[in-house]
Amino acid sequence: MHAYRSHTCADLTAANVGDTVRLSGWVHRVRDHGGVLFIDLRDHYGITQVLCDGDSPAFAELEKVRSEWCIRIDGSVKARDPDLVNPKLPTGEIEVYVRELEVLGAAAELPLMVFGEQEYPEETRLRYRYLDLRREAMQASMTLRSDVVASMRRRMWDKGFREYQTPIITASSPEGARDFLVPSRLHPGRFYALPQAPQQFKQLIMVSGFDKYFQIAPCFRDEDPRADRSPTDFYQLDMEMSFVTQQDVFDTIQPVLHGVFEEFGQGAKVDEVWPQISYRDAALWYGTDKPDLRNPIKMQDCSEHFRGSGFAIFARLLEQEGTEIRAIPAPGGGSRKFCDRMNAFAQKEGLPGMGYIFWRDQGEGMEAAGPLAKNIGPERTEAIRQQLGLGVGDAAFFLGGKTKSFEKVAGKARDVIGEELGLTEKDRFAFAWIVDFPIYEKDEETGEIDFEHNPFSMPQGGMESLEGDPLAVKGYQYDLACNGYEIVSGAIRNHKPEIMLKAFEIAGYGADEVKKRFGGLFNAFQYGAPPHGGCAAGIDRIVMLLADTANIREVIMFPMNQRAEDLMVSAPSEPTSDQLMELGLRVIPQD
Amino acid sequence: MHAYRSHTCADLTAANVGDTVRLSGWVHRVRDHGGVLFIDLRDHYGITQVLCDGDSPAFAELEKVRSEWCIRIDGSVKARDPDLVNPKLPTGEIEVYVRELEVLGAAAELPLMVFGEQEYPEETRLRYRYLDLRREAMQASMTLRSDVVASMRRRMWDKGFREYQTPIITASSPEGARDFLVPSRLHPGRFYALPQAPQQFKQLIMVSGFDKYFQIAPCFRDEDPRADRSPTDFYQLDMEMSFVTQQDVFDTIQPVLHGVFEEFGQGAKVDEVWPQISYRDAALWYGTDKPDLRNPIKMQDCSEHFRGSGFAIFARLLEQEGTEIRAIPAPGGGSRKFCDRMNAFAQKEGLPGMGYIFWRDQGEGMEAAGPLAKNIGPERTEAIRQQLGLGVGDAAFFLGGKTKSFEKVAGKARDVIGEELGLTEKDRFAFAWIVDFPIYEKDEETGEIDFEHNPFSMPQGGMESLEGDPLAVKGYQYDLACNGYEIVSGAIRNHKPEIMLKAFEIAGYGADEVKKRFGGLFNAFQYGAPPHGGCAAGIDRIVMLLADTANIREVIMFPMNQRAEDLMVSAPSEPTSDQLMELGLRVIPQD
Repeated sequence: MHAYRSHTCADLTAANVGDTVRLSGWVHRVRDHGGVLFIDLRDHYGITQVLCDGDSPAFAELEKVRSEWCIRIDGSVKARDPDLVNPKLPTGEIEVYVRELEVLGAAAELPLMVFGEQEYPEETRLRYRYLDLRREAMQASMTLRSDVVASMRRRMWDKGFREYQTPIITASSPEGARDFLVPSRLHPGRFYALPQAPQQFKQLIMVSGFDKYFQIAPCFRDEDPRADRSPTDFYQLDMEMSFVTQQDVFDTIQPVLHGVFEEFGQGAKVDEVWPQISYRDAALWYGTDKPDLRNPIKMQDCSEHFRGSGFAIFARLLEQEGTEIRAIPAPGGGSRKFCDRMNAFAQKEGLPGMGYIFWRDQGEGMEAAGPLAKNIGPERTEAIRQQLGLGVGDAAFFLGGKTKSFEKVAGKARDVIGEELGLTEKDRFAFAWIVDFPIYEKDEETGEIDFEHNPFSMPQGGMESLEGDPLAVKGYQYDLACNGYEIVSGAIRNHKPEIMLKAFEIAGYGADEVKKRFGGLFNAFQYGAPPHGGCAAGIDRIVMLLADTANIREVIMFPMNQRAEDLMVSAPSEPTSDQLMELGLRVIPQD
Repeated sequence: MHAYRSHTCADLTAANVGDTVRLSGWVHRVRDHGGVLFIDLRDHYGITQVLCDGDSPAFAELEKVRSEWCIRIDGSVKARDPDLVNPKLPTGEIEVYVRELEVLGAAAELPLMVFGEQEYPEETRLRYRYLDLRREAMQASMTLRSDVVASMRRRMWDKGFREYQTPIITASSPEGARDFLVPSRLHPGRFYALPQAPQQFKQLIMVSGFDKYFQIAPCFRDEDPRADRSPTDFYQLDMEMSFVTQQDVFDTIQPVLHGVFEEFGQGAKVDEVWPQISYRDAALWYGTDKPDLRNPIKMQDCSEHFRGSGFAIFARLLEQEGTEIRAIPAPGGGSRKFCDRMNAFAQKEGLPGMGYIFWRDQGEGMEAAGPLAKNIGPERTEAIRQQLGLGVGDAAFFLGGKTKSFEKVAGKARDVIGEELGLTEKDRFAFAWIVDFPIYEKDEETGEIDFEHNPFSMPQGGMESLEGDPLAVKGYQYDLACNGYEIVSGAIRNHKPEIMLKAFEIAGYGADEVKKRFGGLFNAFQYGAPPHGGCAAGIDRIVMLLADTANIREVIMFPMNQRAEDLMVSAPSEPTSDQLMELGLRVIPQD
């Protein structure tokens, strides 16, 4: 017989009754029923009930074992009494009578119970991650993550992509976030950097003629802590293709992700149609570039109804340039109580409040209620109702000013309204491609033009477009939003050195600086660069959506805590003076 | 029609004659045949001949293109004249008459030609890697590597393993090599380390109850440059299993690797039987713990034949303790010329020389020749011949002294003899498991006992074995050799805290130090650790064997040069003073 097991703890059924078996696993739960010891023995695959009474030579030893001891038992498989069969367990028809026991690994007193649903502080869970991970939910999260990544890989291979590994110890990359640096021992005073993303390298792979690349790529950013991101690294499904348009990228990645959500979405509806929404429309309709389309609410510009109206606040506001009044329709929100609550929400978010109108019928036909309606009068109110397609029992909320001043709150209010009124569908994954991102933005204070997003995207219209108003230039750049989260970002790249120089010039970067900062790519573009583009999908985020958790540490095997420390293996730690000397570094004493 | 291509450059056959097509790719070669321009247009998939004469509206434009320009052409598919069909090319039956041309990316003068077999200095190849990678051999190497890794993954999944990602920014790991450090910005003065291998984490995954783990894992070691290794990082197929014996690990990984070599070995013979050879036997027979079993030569201890013999050098040598005379049989090596050449080889390797005997028949029956035979006399010579199973036309070489003083050279001599005499089989992959590694070694100078290999292996015989002579303790630790290279290393781990403490104590490490240096693992072992073991296979090395190259940079997309620099993206580079300040570091000026 094998040294440790003839079966896993999920294998035995009624067909094994009478067999002599060997099992290894962890003591999940011990119960003493008057001289009979019952143990739920657990391994990665399942649980088998084993038992022992005073007649067994193993009894005295088995009495000593405690929760989470790792043991090996030999015994014989018995059918359970019919009334003791557990139909929830694959092994529920049988139990194993223990004749021999070996303690493989005893356990000290547990800082964290594996059995049961007790909650523990995150620091405890991370410090004793190896116990935390034994819990059923964590085993499920980690296997989900592993299975999702494998499915992504398989789907990319099926589409003719190959996975190529790009350097991890490399040069500072131009992604805009903060690099992790790695001091060089062979070149003291010089540093490598960990890549914020493999973007430069995947573009170089295209210039090298590989046509289709993907990688499950670790990305490193030295970011300040936040609950929903890892403070050190994260993983992307990174891909790039040559000789493609934006639509080709969509047509390639969409079936991959759709398939993954279908496969692991546990029956939730996965939208077939992924609309393409321009960045501007997304802002107008949803107040964000990562809209949650499970929520049917679409905001609208209602400025015209308020211009010169009796509602002086809005009317005066509209006299300033660049202002507007945005309406958030709220079907089913037509009660003063709800409207007041939403008004309070806006105040909590730092705005003066949200104006509202709601429509009711108190037995005398439809009537528009709320202070706003009174101020602007019935005609304008009715025009608004018609524009928004609302009726009795519905409400509309209004926010005004310069777009930037209220749009984010408007987007949040839309989320809350959708949620509270039950409009946002559950058990559904809704996707939207956000397209036509502007290449540039103007700094409100300095008036200077800078890149809004990634400086490496191809401007729509190519060189010609760069000769007009920079703020009107859109890029072949796109995000994919799912249920309110950005899960993909990508672009068709600017592969023409002359357009690249011009694009940077507009943002105030001279040719020398471009060559210095992005020399690898810029040089490569001198030697027959193909048009190319691609995207990167955030794996941690996708697994979080599929696992329905908002905490990224639930989907990472050994995450850092929010102070970017690993308490289990003690990272970061103080280097030895020899190490510092070899690297030619001195630590500046902190006060 | 698609913006860039209706077909790839490998697609078109006689079936497409008459079609209007669009192709994109690189100008591989241009020929001007008296007013007709022929271009071999190349993409990742293949080459298509396109042509153009003065009647085409594209002629004037096409005349301007040069090697490695990236272009898009529209044209019509024509059958080639029967005598111009190129059967070596999948597209060799057709050519495309160009009607329209678009230059997608022009190319400056090339520092490195893609077409042809010209050799370039490695620095040029690395600086212009994107051109180097366009060459046919490099495209093949990179796709080979990608396919090998994918095949490994598929085979591991098929065996019930899941891939789990372990941290890359983490703590200093106890592998014995030098860590790359990463300064922490949030904790100035403290450093993370990049993992030398995921060993601690994969063991923690086992303690966490995951049963079967694998990972295509990047490993980071700050090593001094050497031709056959990357100075920064390398990849392993890393795996670990719970509740297993050493033989289980072999039975799991052997079919995976055997399958990979069968799949990508291009018809070379892949041995079915992988013998298990003890570390001591491997040293005795092959002079190395990574023997090349394609070479049938097995060395033997011939000390007894020289003890008290007339060959004074060896006889005197054998009077010292711990010495021996080792014979390298050389079937077919029986000529003075060959023997002298091997003697010279040994001298070049720093030894005084190699004694030899060879057997010949100059018409008077078999005769043993060479100075050694004369010195020891016919009886001893014949006994040697019989022990080694040699005859007319064969030779034997002899090295003597303390084992460590000659064994490495003996192993090298065995390689050279096997090679020169044509004994070493070509087109074959021969494997051997090397087992029973000693846990400890004695420092010859200080006499102190230290770990010979990995301190985390389970000693054979467990705690009891640690109570006897440390130098006699063998570990459940193993390597796999293939054709003279170590391609796998692994062990059954020491998962019992009390045995771990004892094992370290013998090597002079107190309990406090174990807890401090290996605290993560040591603590985890207090909470019900399962018996577990595994191994790691070197991916770069395996791909090098399959690609038949001795230079690791041929199988890495963007390798460092031998000074650990990436000239293409300029790494490492000088940090900004802001970066240093944020990290709380100062660079010590170098003299």
